[in-house]
Amino acid sequence: MQQVLDSSRPGDWRTLDPKNTLYLELAAGRVVIELAPQFAPAHVANIRALASNGYWNGLSINRVQDNYVVQWGDGNAEDAAKRKPLGRGIKPKLPAEFARKSQGLAMTVLPDADGWAPQAGFVAGFPAARDSATGSSWLAHCYGTVGAGRDMAADSSNGAELYVVIGQSPRHLDRNITTVGRVIQGIELLSALPRGTGPLGFYADPAQRTPIRAIRLASDVPKAERANLEVLRTDTPLFAELVESRRNRRDDWYLQPAGHINICNVPVPVREAAAATPAAAKSKKR
Amino acid sequence: MQQVLDSSRPGDWRTLDPKNTLYLELAAGRVVIELAPQFAPAHVANIRALASNGYWNGLSINRVQDNYVVQWGDGNAEDAAKRKPLGRGIKPKLPAEFARKSQGLAMTVLPDADGWAPQAGFVAGFPAARDSATGSSWLAHCYGTVGAGRDMAADSSNGAELYVVIGQSPRHLDRNITTVGRVIQGIELLSALPRGTGPLGFYADPAQRTPIRAIRLASDVPKAERANLEVLRTDTPLFAELVESRRNRRDDWYLQPAGHINICNVPVPVREAAAATPAAAKSKKR
Repeated sequence: MQQVLDSSRPGDWRTLDPKNTLYLELAAGRVVIELAPQFAPAHVANIRALASNGYWNGLSINRVQDNYVVQWGDGNAEDAAKRKPLGRGIKPKLPAEFARKSQGLAMTVLPDADGWAPQAGFVAGFPAARDSATGSSWLAHCYGTVGAGRDMAADSSNGAELYVVIGQSPRHLDRNITTVGRVIQGIELLSALPRGTGPLGFYADPAQRTPIRAIRLASDVPKAERANLEVLRTDTPLFAELVESRRNRRDDWYLQPAGHINICNVPVPVREAAAATPAAAKSKKR
Repeated sequence: MQQVLDSSRPGDWRTLDPKNTLYLELAAGRVVIELAPQFAPAHVANIRALASNGYWNGLSINRVQDNYVVQWGDGNAEDAAKRKPLGRGIKPKLPAEFARKSQGLAMTVLPDADGWAPQAGFVAGFPAARDSATGSSWLAHCYGTVGAGRDMAADSSNGAELYVVIGQSPRHLDRNITTVGRVIQGIELLSALPRGTGPLGFYADPAQRTPIRAIRLASDVPKAERANLEVLRTDTPLFAELVESRRNRRDDWYLQPAGHINICNVPVPVREAAAATPAAAKSKKR
């Protein structure tokens, strides 16, 4: 994969739109999330407003379930007397945005069968799936996918309670919950948190929760404090080469190339724009 | 899934063979591993002898790569002057045991296509795959699978350096490395460790490594100190029911049943034998 990245040109990379970039600030560092308004416009609008209002500042990560999800929000959300008000302009519940029309979405389709969906691939950097029979597309639950927690009713989410996948892709959640984006950088600040001690990985003792210093929209952050990242485009011949390098590893260590790849096994490389030379590209190695 | 487990009978569960059970003892607690001699007899023989000799006692976890593996062994293995001797009766290298003949192995085959292999399912509790064209079977790299690190040569592993998968199933490793077992309990003691600070998730500073108090074979441990676990059998009608309950969730929360399952998304439930009533069954919930 590194060989493929070494041959990349500046046009193979894109910058993040500050209006679609969320910074989750923890004592341990920053987690960068890219929002997907093309899949969940109502949820992303609420999330942007919640961030701009400083809603999450001082709240916490309340759930870490091994091989599943990390989840944050108001630990007192179930208690009407104690819960933090969502703030002006925030809708308390939103329509389900589990899937959308495929029309208008360009997908780089993977060559192999997905199993969970008729087709799978990448839409603007996000792992996604689609069904031509229903004409619908949706974000796939892969490692790093961000979604909006909901109760029993499909329209009970509002984006205030968010989760990140930190385990084996729970694709059974696809089309059952609204997905809003993907972690671009810093997921290890979430995936290495102590596992919750109560049912479903919620912390039994509120003192075990991890405080959130702030969640801010990049566009609300002074330019000098923004992360300066570039993400590999997924609609280029270079990305197709990268996918093929993962389908069939050419490294001499591999004696049996897999001849197969799954969307959740394809990393989308990220690099610091300031050091945007091919040799400085950051990527996951085997 | 809980409903299915609640209907289980004692015969749906099995106990672990102490000769095939490894305890990795950390300051934070015990990780229980079931060895798979039917897939890697030579490696398991070496691992048993290494454990009985106390080889790993005082060594450390040296690598934690996010969304990939945790790995332990001798941090000085590459340094002939400093490395710990393997001990009497330990073979310094072993033949590759990447796959074996399918003959004699009963597999509970999953109903859905696997993608990575012609067929996939469970063999005696282990996620596995097989190819009728070559007549071979192998353990699949799922969350919790344990393997033996190797260098470039296929026969360069000896079982002294072991890794556990803690991320999205790296199935491209299948048939490229020897897999020796699976974590049965306590994987969260590994998956929540701080990520390594150096290349490939190795700790840049040896002081960051996690010390191993001991790795012992259960049969070398006094009975009173053994874990008293039962594992759900994977060759029963009840297990087939459990798989179906994961393929199509009947819980009202799910509006769109997946109609699909992957071996790495099927948990094999474990419970304390002492409290072996159906209501006490421990399992992962959604």
